[in-house]
Amino acid sequence: MDKVKLRLTIAYEGTRYAGWQTQKTGLAVQQKLEEVLARYFPSRPALHSSSRTDTGVHALGMVAHFEVPKAELKMPCQKLMLALNAFLPEDIRVTAVARARPEFHARYHAQGKQYRYFVWNHRAMNPLLRHSAWQVPLPLDLASMREAAKLFVGTHDFKSFAANHPWKKESTARTLTRCDIKKQGPLLTFIIEGDGFLYKMCRGIVGTLVQLGHGRFTVADIKRMLAAKDRRAAGMTAPAQGLVLWKVFYKQFES
Amino acid sequence: MDKVKLRLTIAYEGTRYAGWQTQKTGLAVQQKLEEVLARYFPSRPALHSSSRTDTGVHALGMVAHFEVPKAELKMPCQKLMLALNAFLPEDIRVTAVARARPEFHARYHAQGKQYRYFVWNHRAMNPLLRHSAWQVPLPLDLASMREAAKLFVGTHDFKSFAANHPWKKESTARTLTRCDIKKQGPLLTFIIEGDGFLYKMCRGIVGTLVQLGHGRFTVADIKRMLAAKDRRAAGMTAPAQGLVLWKVFYKQFES
Repeated sequence: MDKVKLRLTIAYEGTRYAGWQTQKTGLAVQQKLEEVLARYFPSRPALHSSSRTDTGVHALGMVAHFEVPKAELKMPCQKLMLALNAFLPEDIRVTAVARARPEFHARYHAQGKQYRYFVWNHRAMNPLLRHSAWQVPLPLDLASMREAAKLFVGTHDFKSFAANHPWKKESTARTLTRCDIKKQGPLLTFIIEGDGFLYKMCRGIVGTLVQLGHGRFTVADIKRMLAAKDRRAAGMTAPAQGLVLWKVFYKQFES
Repeated sequence: MDKVKLRLTIAYEGTRYAGWQTQKTGLAVQQKLEEVLARYFPSRPALHSSSRTDTGVHALGMVAHFEVPKAELKMPCQKLMLALNAFLPEDIRVTAVARARPEFHARYHAQGKQYRYFVWNHRAMNPLLRHSAWQVPLPLDLASMREAAKLFVGTHDFKSFAANHPWKKESTARTLTRCDIKKQGPLLTFIIEGDGFLYKMCRGIVGTLVQLGHGRFTVADIKRMLAAKDRRAAGMTAPAQGLVLWKVFYKQFES
């Protein structure tokens, strides 16, 4: 049977959801999307995503693909985007729909990802950002944080910064190509880009950098943390609500 | 009796509120704040604000003052800020508390205000901005919009851009010192600064500029609209949820 593969770009506010992946407990973003896909595609396609985000984590550029029999695709991609959004809740939006090559796989072909983490560094929270930033009330030493952030760039074993998965035997080495902190008034934006991320790795890096900004750690400590390969050696995990999966890169599939 | 005057800076997400000012119908931001002030000040002080925002409009830098008998002020300003926030809902935050001079008045001494209006110019809304930006799906001619925006700077009669108050005899002349449009990807930020604003004036300017961006008006039309002094001559009023009262200026009261 002739099949067609489609690629979706998806944005969501994760506040109400038990993460991306369909779970036994709690509503997942994937489940909401698959329910709406089933309205248009009788074969009820499953979505395969680039990433799995945790409870409360957001996305602007999540990518996922699905496959349906050609006969089921009854409208152009642009129209399908609007049709899907018409039935999705306001906190989930499909922002692009495109035909994908038959061999395209959202997870296996992802060459890199960019996450952004938002910190509101003020004694009172910004109510407009209350679901999408972490409020850090005490002053931060931004110069030291930026110096420390540079140490994460390159290929490192990030075991000390990721949640333990002791049953997993895979390598915990990853390559970061960017770890910057932008400041606009009380808003700090951590931009973290790399070829792949371990479970809770971004949040471990941000939590540790914020503690360093409070004087809890020094820049030299970061080197020791990386060398230790032990989660207990590094700092805290920053809360979920500040994290946004910003972009997923597929260089070989881009025009 | 010895009195002390305090100045509050207030941020709120207006989504749930019937505007700033206490109304007979609907919950107002002012009412919420006065309820919480009454917990700490038995004299139940009234708040006097720099501005009144409409239903659904937000603020980051609303300023308001109140006066209480000196004996009622039992904690330093910084502590009072935290104490007030402890009882406020999450969508309202006091971001600064300071002692004000006895003669200070939040409305009469405001020398200028900055509003920002956010437009998400994309066929799908950004779910993280769904309460604080206006989604404009069709492409916009930004160059023309910027050229037109410049025409609002200076002293003009803004009658064509404000909601009619036919019973009011006051002047409708105002001076804008800034009317810029910044672009970051699909996000447009209108920055409008001036000595004062008529009712719904910012939203009239933004709505008209967006329609101009769609080709509905030309840059020359803006001049004609200003000259007409008639609301029917200009374009639409942009929706409330994109507007944020960003900052209020009190130059003579700033250190």
